[in-house]
Parts: sequence; structure tokens; C-alpha cells
Amino acid sequence: MVKVGILGATGYAGSEIVRLLSQHGGVELSMLTSKSYAGQKMSDIYPALKGICDMVLEEAEPEVVAEKCDVVFTALPHGASKEVIPKLYALGLKVIDLSGDYRYNDPAVYEEWYKEAHSSPELLAESVYGMPELHRDDIKKTRLVGNPGCYTTCSILGLAPLLAAGVVEEKNIIIDAKSGVSGAGRGLAQAFHFCECTESMKAYKVATHRHTSEIEQELSLLAGSDIKLSFTPHLVPMKRGIYATIYANLKEPKSKEELMKLYHTFYDNEPFIRLHDQGVPESNFVSGSNFVDIGLCVDERLNRVIVISTIDNLVKGAAGQAIQNMNLLCGFPETQGLSGAGFYL
Amino acid sequence: MVKVGILGATGYAGSEIVRLLSQHGGVELSMLTSKSYAGQKMSDIYPALKGICDMVLEEAEPEVVAEKCDVVFTALPHGASKEVIPKLYALGLKVIDLSGDYRYNDPAVYEEWYKEAHSSPELLAESVYGMPELHRDDIKKTRLVGNPGCYTTCSILGLAPLLAAGVVEEKNIIIDAKSGVSGAGRGLAQAFHFCECTESMKAYKVATHRHTSEIEQELSLLAGSDIKLSFTPHLVPMKRGIYATIYANLKEPKSKEELMKLYHTFYDNEPFIRLHDQGVPESNFVSGSNFVDIGLCVDERLNRVIVISTIDNLVKGAAGQAIQNMNLLCGFPETQGLSGAGFYL
Amino acid sequence: MVKVGILGATGYAGSEIVRLLSQHGGVELSMLTSKSYAGQKMSDIYPALKGICDMVLEEAEPEVVAEKCDVVFTALPHGASKEVIPKLYALGLKVIDLSGDYRYNDPAVYEEWYKEAHSSPELLAESVYGMPELHRDDIKKTRLVGNPGCYTTCSILGLAPLLAAGVVEEKNIIIDAKSGVSGAGRGLAQAFHFCECTESMKAYKVATHRHTSEIEQELSLLAGSDIKLSFTPHLVPMKRGIYATIYANLKEPKSKEELMKLYHTFYDNEPFIRLHDQGVPESNFVSGSNFVDIGLCVDERLNRVIVISTIDNLVKGAAGQAIQNMNLLCGFPETQGLSGAGFYL
Amino acid sequence: MVKVGILGATGYAGSEIVRLLSQHGGVELSMLTSKSYAGQKMSDIYPALKGICDMVLEEAEPEVVAEKCDVVFTALPHGASKEVIPKLYALGLKVIDLSGDYRYNDPAVYEEWYKEAHSSPELLAESVYGMPELHRDDIKKTRLVGNPGCYTTCSILGLAPLLAAGVVEEKNIIIDAKSGVSGAGRGLAQAFHFCECTESMKAYKVATHRHTSEIEQELSLLAGSDIKLSFTPHLVPMKRGIYATIYANLKEPKSKEELMKLYHTFYDNEPFIRLHDQGVPESNFVSGSNFVDIGLCVDERLNRVIVISTIDNLVKGAAGQAIQNMNLLCGFPETQGLSGAGFYL
Repeated sequence: MVKVGILGATGYAGSEIVRLLSQHGGVELSMLTSKSYAGQKMSDIYPALKGICDMVLEEAEPEVVAEKCDVVFTALPHGASKEVIPKLYALGLKVIDLSGDYRYNDPAVYEEWYKEAHSSPELLAESVYGMPELHRDDIKKTRLVGNPGCYTTCSILGLAPLLAAGVVEEKNIIIDAKSGVSGAGRGLAQAFHFCECTESMKAYKVATHRHTSEIEQELSLLAGSDIKLSFTPHLVPMKRGIYATIYANLKEPKSKEELMKLYHTFYDNEPFIRLHDQGVPESNFVSGSNFVDIGLCVDERLNRVIVISTIDNLVKGAAGQAIQNMNLLCGFPETQGLSGAGFYL
Repeated sequence: MVKVGILGATGYAGSEIVRLLSQHGGVELSMLTSKSYAGQKMSDIYPALKGICDMVLEEAEPEVVAEKCDVVFTALPHGASKEVIPKLYALGLKVIDLSGDYRYNDPAVYEEWYKEAHSSPELLAESVYGMPELHRDDIKKTRLVGNPGCYTTCSILGLAPLLAAGVVEEKNIIIDAKSGVSGAGRGLAQAFHFCECTESMKAYKVATHRHTSEIEQELSLLAGSDIKLSFTPHLVPMKRGIYATIYANLKEPKSKEELMKLYHTFYDNEPFIRLHDQGVPESNFVSGSNFVDIGLCVDERLNRVIVISTIDNLVKGAAGQAIQNMNLLCGFPETQGLSGAGFYL
Repeated sequence: MVKVGILGATGYAGSEIVRLLSQHGGVELSMLTSKSYAGQKMSDIYPALKGICDMVLEEAEPEVVAEKCDVVFTALPHGASKEVIPKLYALGLKVIDLSGDYRYNDPAVYEEWYKEAHSSPELLAESVYGMPELHRDDIKKTRLVGNPGCYTTCSILGLAPLLAAGVVEEKNIIIDAKSGVSGAGRGLAQAFHFCECTESMKAYKVATHRHTSEIEQELSLLAGSDIKLSFTPHLVPMKRGIYATIYANLKEPKSKEELMKLYHTFYDNEPFIRLHDQGVPESNFVSGSNFVDIGLCVDERLNRVIVISTIDNLVKGAAGQAIQNMNLLCGFPETQGLSGAGFYL
Repeated sequence: MVKVGILGATGYAGSEIVRLLSQHGGVELSMLTSKSYAGQKMSDIYPALKGICDMVLEEAEPEVVAEKCDVVFTALPHGASKEVIPKLYALGLKVIDLSGDYRYNDPAVYEEWYKEAHSSPELLAESVYGMPELHRDDIKKTRLVGNPGCYTTCSILGLAPLLAAGVVEEKNIIIDAKSGVSGAGRGLAQAFHFCECTESMKAYKVATHRHTSEIEQELSLLAGSDIKLSFTPHLVPMKRGIYATIYANLKEPKSKEELMKLYHTFYDNEPFIRLHDQGVPESNFVSGSNFVDIGLCVDERLNRVIVISTIDNLVKGAAGQAIQNMNLLCGFPETQGLSGAGFYL
């Protein structure tokens, strides 16, 4: 059994890793850490896990983590990751980081969007962007994965085949993305009070959200040129889900069938991509599962393609993709523990 | 007291007219018609209206309607409007139609999007598009108003100042719109079952929704040229609200302040337009009210403006705007019965 | 115009008073106070009120309040009311207090349930329990109203006719009550995070909720004997609404019709009580309105009556009833500003 | 591999069986039937199951079912079960019926509550009430299980230890139960339209719901005397969950600890019962899982115990319990395929 630790286990991503790993079969949870809840049981904080995971939460030095664990998920608040990861990495652990700290190829991009210098640029050079559909081979060889953000996973995978094939204009790509509230995490704020969330929606961080830079990095690699695009996040009154509506202008007229063929070629061996040849997916087709559901329409009047891409932000957008990366890092079948149906209801 | 009839009173728009008129003060409800519920009381169908409106629903011939009413709201299923309105109009009534039948200047556009010939093109020539912010003077002079759709009201008013000022490119305008479920009406369908709506969202009628043609008609008039744009409707799990995120490329760089100034000039005498100089509105800022809340951001990296526009689909997107039109048609102050605060909670 | 102040205007009850008074017509808002938001505009905190109430929030000494206002609503956090109200009262103001501080006839009951001595028992002797259906004449004569709680209003009015008529046993009365989340107020807590509220429900403060004591006080007065009962509050995932399911054993067999007749006799002159002779009400029949909707069933197998009573916790359960009391205190028609339909949708 | 058929696979219970069995490991789905959707794929109706279950739905005669399957779940509309089950049983199949048809010991009780004669009383004599916690040994020996209703499972298991121990009065037991909307099934009705469900709640079938008779049957067996009680179902705006608040009068004063001890003795070997020694459970502690979470409070003022019991109506209240019964019938470990954590988020 591979011994697994989760640092920051009581956030929504952390608790989702616990939920999913309880059905994995190849790993043993050896350590859960939490600053705020150390000394309490995981199932005190998440009573849904009573009888499933009653481990006591700890505060632990990196050395202790390294003693008890083979692989570690860091689901820490922004900033905390950067501090602890170099130590964990130096101690020989495999690390899957759910923050933005190790997702960039270029420290300058990090600096531009996070407004601070990167404290361990040498590690950034070793880390791999943990999107198996694009970087599977590199992930298998690394010990440090920068697990992608939820908006980015949904957006990049929705657009990748079009940019790889070079069929859309590089300008005028627009991603209008909608997220369930769990994407904002478990922290308290007036905006996440039930009475102010339910029956309402809003855009936020318009033209300034950090995930824009991740999307641009990966799409530029695929396109072989510098992509700049609009990304607008919205909060909608549901718990889970990312739903991206993506607009791009076709260089030459293409039918829906021609474009779907590109997607099939690009994705047909991927275990978690489901293509909708008919219609477009709804967000709860993927709730609770690691699937990415993609459909598209062509607007012939405007020579524009509209792609719909949807994931569960907590699964493929966080915990599930992290476990997919763990499977690759540790030699498990890539889908182990992730093959279950979601919960439509 | 002006005598008012509502044909098709038991749909969501009809019931909302009843709710709002109960506080108007200048009108008397003289007739409510319903095919399915004739003989029952309005408050049997909507018990929230018990003690507020206990009128008995009728089925009535146009002649009877004309006898009892001065002005009529037609909130009928698509197709039914076109049949009855020519008779009501010929009988001298003032008519505010909530269907799409009398919203077009050009019968050919109607035909293209509704896939049938218009049966009374001569009336189409007399009807006025009932958006007071753009056609106030014409509305005052007509007896037949084509009350705009919910998506269209939100989209057109969000974009009007930019197109009137000629500061954005005519190509690459994209409207990504999200609607609460009441926009789909009271009819039953699997898609509107609570269990399949809640905690989920989806796009629908991508690149084919009829409201596109209304938006293009009005924006082309404002721009003085032929506008074609992308309009994508989505269903989100809330009862009320339209939330439009609108993208347009600036011809020349402009700051947010410059653009807001255009909006202030265009709208500062409008009683129902609220401009957000700071931040962007949320959909429940307008729930239950006739307000249109608008904010915008400029993405300097891309020389693109992103406008957020939001209304309550049942009020400014249907019943409220219809009453605003009635006020203009009947000589009431334009805001009468519509000045209340919405319900944030 | 009567000059009105609201102390603690930015809580949910305070903001609802502002919303309702904006349509009242007989009063002028002269002062809104807030400790946390002093210096900001009411519409900065509640943008739904933009253009409706843009007053600046203040912090103010009682003397200043007394200068500017004729009548004051105190919607302060528990404890704060008791401190400021004696001063306001001494300065000659009419005061409607939305806390629990002035709802009791007997300071010992307050002490038992609030676990502290009452600091102004002499005022408790002058204050009137602000439920017009039971104490209308006394309210007209007082200057200090203890505005009832939301659970209590719904429960007492649901049971009053049965206890006044002496047809149910005094033992074995059970009130199983469900509340929307706004009943918990605007404060932040993990339990009110959208993700932990939506799609879930729970009981809380079982057998220990303070509103039990208010209910027992008023029902004992009606019954002429000492009533002790079970009251269980629950949180359900909706914004507004109290829904009480009430069980009582009949002394002698009675038909539903006989019992409804008691309710009609008791309530038929009441402007805000709506009796459902057929079926039982749903909670959104009253959303946004000051109505109390009541229905009942008789279980002949068990000789038990089950009463359903429902109100909007923010209106009849707080702000609306407070305004109803203000109308009585100030000589307005009792229903002024409160006659509107709620919003079913 | 045991070959499994599901008759009526496209209802909510049927689709949940498919979801859960996809992770079971010991069975093979051999047949899914549907009258309305025959010829379509299961994943056309539930796209969440795309790639998980793409079987084609069939219409099939009992003989064909018997050829292809070892065990059959019947999740048919009421009435349809009674017709087909005698044939399936005669053909040697193991049958787990999710309707009410085979839940009763006494055909007269069925007749009283279902207002029709039972058509196969001889089978009723052979069928076992499928609640493993009460009838495990009998279930192992039968070939026909009447799978309990959702309300009943939650209510009976909440009360069983008290009645078995004889510590509560037999009169004045009151079960106030709240259900998510999926309990009403996938069929369309105005009451389940999103706009009329969300933000609202209601009681229904007060004092007349059929599940009352199931609860009384099982509790009478446990008590050894004839129990009659109040059961009130409510609809609350969430997809899943049954939440029962149960009131019973103690014969003699007992502390919470004494009562919890009874529960521990009764349930401590049960794999799906979780007892909350502190506090009471919330409904989403069990969402998506087969757990029954139970807590209780003692009201010493009134000598009354209030028990909270909650389950997921689609899992322990339908599909999960049905699979638990299948495990017993087929010799699998009782928890196989059911040990996963639910989804708190």
C-alpha cells in the first residue's frame, strides 16, 4: 500500500480527496494535517465521513510527514504551499500541489499574475503541469506536480483540439465560465452566505482572474504561438461544477462534424473525456465524477464555433485530477478509484 | 380608473402583471382570461394572491373583452397572440403583446426566425417595439406594443450606448446570457423538474435562439449598420433573473471612465437604469424590481470591453416593462406601480 | 410625515423594514444607524436599494436619535437593545424592539431562558407584546412594543383559536417548525455557508430554543392555564419562511369543519390571517407578504388535530409585524404599506 | 457473476441502482427494461451514466427476464409490480420489489391503505419485509423481498430501540418527516416544477400517507402491541434526503445517556447505522450513502424524547437498501458496493 498524506485536509479539496481515496484500494491514508482543527477527528469536521475516515488531524513538521508518507497532496491556502513544498521535495517525497504555486513554466508569468516573486524558481523548473491529457509522459517522470485549477482544466480541455489543429483564429477567443460555490472554498465571506448566494449569480474578477494565465500558457504551447484571451468567471447558485462556454472564430468554414472529428482524434483514448456528438452537456452530467464532458455548435452565420466544456470543480478540477496524477506518479492504473459514476441526482 | 384585461393570466408573466398591478393605484382589473383554468379563481391557481386577486378566470370572445376593457395585456402562448390581436386592435383596444409576434419591423426577419409567414404584416407596421428607453415617443402614440423579450431587454440596454456612440467593432460582439428558470414559463417538461434543474446549469439553443433577431434589429438601428452577433442562452438554477455578460472589441482604446461617461449620458434621465461605476451588479440586485443594473470592465490587454447587464426576467423582462408601456399608453407617470424596491432576500 | 429611525439597519430585519417602508407613504426615514458600516450608504451594503434608499448610515447617541425621530425600530444584536431602549424611551420616543428583551410579562421567565437578569424590569411592565391579533388595544396605548419572534408568531397564531376555545388537551402539544436561513441573520458561520446549507436540512436547539418561552407565555394566557409544549426548530434550504406543523390532541372528537369554524370566528376580521378551508398552505404562499396562512387536518384515527401555519419570517415574523405595530402606535391604518402581494416566484 | 435485471430502470430509484451497481464488482447488469424508453440507451436518458452504462433499454416478457437474470429489481409504477412479480417468482427468480405491494404481513392492511384488494395474497405470505436490521435472517431465506419505503426506513429505524425496550408510551408518538423532491419520483407535475419547489416547502397527505401503515406494522411487531401514530410528510427544496423528527413520551424519566445506551445495544453490530452521541445529524451527512444517522435529545421538562433520524431516500430509502437485500439474497458480504462515503458537497 502506498502511504498518502494530505496537508490541509479540511478544505473542500482535501475532504474530497479523502472521499475519493476511501474507494481507491491501493493507498493507505497515513496522515491528515490541519492547522485549525489539529487534535480533532476528520469526521468531526465532516460528519459525512463518520466511519469512513475517523483519523485525527495533526500539525506536522515536514520531517514527520516524510517519515510517514510516500506521496503528499498539498491542499494548503495560497502561499503556504510554496513554503513547505521545497522541504517535502528535498526529503524525497512525491508531491501533488493543488495551489497555483507550481503550475507555471515561467516565473515571470507567476510574478505578473500573483504580484510577488516566486520563492523557489528552481523547483518550478522541475514541476510538471498536472494535466494528464496534455503532459502524461512528463507527469510519470516527475516528483512534483502542479495540479491545475478548476477553471483552467475545463477551459483548456475544451479548446485544446482546436488550437492544436490550428483551425481557429488566435484572437477573439472568449471563455465565459460559470462555477459552483465550492470553487471559492470553505472560508467564510458575506458573498458565500446562503441567503446572498442562492437565487443569485454574478461575474467577478472580470479580466483579472489568475487562471487566465494558466489557460494562456497551455494553449500557447498547443498553438505554438502567443495566445491572449478573455476569461470571465461567474458564481452560480450550485455547489459543484464548472461550465465553460467558449467562443472562437474559425479560420475557414468547418462543419460541426468536421470539428467533432478533430475532438475524437485528439481525445478518443482518454478515459475521462466524454464527447457529445449530439447536443451539449449539462453541468450535472459530471457532478461527482472525474469526467470532462464536451460538446460544440457551429454558428455558420458568423463562422464561429461555440464549445461547451464542463467538469466537477472538486473532482476533475481538484481532487480527482490530483488522484489521477497520483496514479501516474505511483504506477497505478490511471483510472483507479476514479471510475465511478457521478451523482446526477 | 383605466380598465385592464389580461389574456392568458395564469402564466408566469400574467401572474406577475397581477401582482404588480395590485399596487398600481390607477387601474382596475376587469378581466382575466385562461383557457385551462376558466371558472376557477386566480387565487386558486396562485394562492399567494388570495385576498389580493380572487377574480374568476374566463374564456372570452374579443367583443366581450373590448366591452369590459380599455387596455389589454396578451400573455398568450406563441401563435395565439397573432390570432386574437388583430380583432382586439380593430375593436379599438390598446394592446400590449408579450409574445414575439409584434416585435419586428420587417416581416421577413420574423419569417426567418419563426419559420412561418406573419399573418398580419399590416399590423406589424403599426406596432411599436416596447422598449421605452429607445422608443418612448413612438410608444406614446401607438395602440399596439410588441413588448420585448427578457433576454433582449437585458442585452440591448447593456449594449445600446456603445453602439450608438460607435466605439466598438461591429464584428465579434458576443452576448453570453444566463436565465432563471421562470423564463421558460410554467409549462411542464423534464428539464424543469426540480431534481434536474437544481444544482445544475446548461446552455441551450446555442446559435439559434429567436431573441438573437430582436437584439440584432435594435442594435442595427442604433449603430446605423447591420449588426450580427453571437447570443448564447443558459439556464441557471434560480427562479428569476437574466444576467448578460457582453463582449465587444473597442475600435480605439478607451478607459472604463470614458465608457461609463457614455452610459451616463445615454441613460441619466432613465428612471429604471442603474449604472454601477464601481464593480459589476449581481442578479439579485434587481430581483422583483423593474431596474436594469449595468456595469462594465475594460480589458486593456485585449482592448475589449466586457459589459454586465442584469434584469428580472419577469419584471423588466416581461410584466414590469409591459406596465411601463401601459403607463405610457394611458398617460400615467411612467414609473407608477413600478417604483418599489426588489427583494434582495 | 412621521419621522422614523432604524437602529441596526443593516441586518436582514433592518433592511426589510427599509424595503417595506419605501412603499408606505406616511413616513419619512430620518435615520439609519449601524456600528459596522457607519459612513457608508445603505445602498452600498444592499445595492438592491440603490435609488430607493441611499441614506448614509450613522452611529448616534440616543439624544440625537430623539431629536430626529418620532418612532424608532431597534433591530440590534441581542443585549444591545436592553442598553439603549431605556434611554430612548425616557426621551419620549415610540420604540418597537425586534429583540427578545421586551417580550415577557415576567422577568423570571426572561431570566430562565436568557440566563441573565433583566436590566430594566420596570420597562418590561410597560412594554406590550406586539402581536396585534392578540393585543391590539394595548399596543395602541403603549410607547414600547416587544415585537414577537418569527417562530413564535407563526406558532401562536396557528394555535390560538384552539386554546382559546379549550378544545385541545394542554399536554402533548408539539410544534415542529422549519425556518428559512434568513432567520439566522446576516452573520457569518460555517453552518450558513451556501455549500453547507443548500441541499441539506437539520434540527437545532432541540428542546432548548428561547422562542419556546414566548409561545408558552401567550398560549397560557389564552388557555387560562399553564401550557408547556415541545418546540423544535429546523433549518431548511430556502431564504425565507417559517412553516409550523402543530400537533394537539382533541378533548372531544371534532370534525375539520367544526374546527375551521372556530378559526373563522377568531380571525375573520383580521386583515393578515388567511384561512385555507381546503388543503394546507405552502410556505411560498406568503413569501414577501405580511400574511399568516393557516390550514388544518383532523386525524380521526387518533383524535388529533394537525395545524399548518406559515409566515414569512422577515415580514410577519419581523419587519412587517413591526410596521403593523408602528401603524397602530402612530394612528395609521393598520395595513398601510403592508397590503401588497408577496412574490410566489 | 450474478446476473441482475432492473425492471423500470429509468425512474430515479432504477437509475440509482445502476449508479451503485457500477461499483459493486460481483454482479453483471444483464437487462434494463423501460416502457417509455425502450430502444434507447440508458445513458441517453441519464447522460451522467455515459461510459458507465450504455445498455439499451428493452421491453421484455417475464420469460425473457428469467432467462437472462438471476435476480431482479422491480422499480415499477405502483400496480405494475403486482402484475409481473408473481410470474417472475414462479419462474424461479429472486425478486426485490421497490413498490409497496409486498411489504405487508396482512392483506387487510394493504387493502385499507391502498383501497384495493391484494391480487396475490399467497405471495404476500412468502415475501419478507426487506429491512435487514430487523429481518436479516428471514431475508436470507426468501426469494421475494418487499423493499421498504424511504419514509418508513427512516422512521422505523429511528424508533425501533425505544419500542423494543418498552421505554416510551405507545400513544402520542409523532413522526414529522421531511423529504427531498426526488422522493416524489421523476414524473412531471406542477408541484415539482423548479420554480414552484425551490424556496418553498409544504406538508402533504397529512394523516393519510400510506407509509404510516408500514411504520405501524413494524413498530407494533417490535412493541408487541398495536401502535398507532401520527406521520406527517413534507416536501423540502432539496433533491435527496429524508429527515424525521420523532416525538415520544417516556414512561419513566430517562437521561439521554441511558437512551443512547439502548441504541448502541440495539445497533452496534449494524454496518449502516451511525449513532451521534453528541448533537443531531444533518440530512447531508448521509447524502449519497447507505447510512442511517440517528441522534436524540431528552426534554426533561416534558419527559419526552425527540429522536432525529436521517437517510438518503434514494440510497438507504430505495436503491441502496435494495442492493443490501440483494447481497443477503445472493450471499455477498452485506456491505458490498455500499461502503462508500456519501457526498457532503
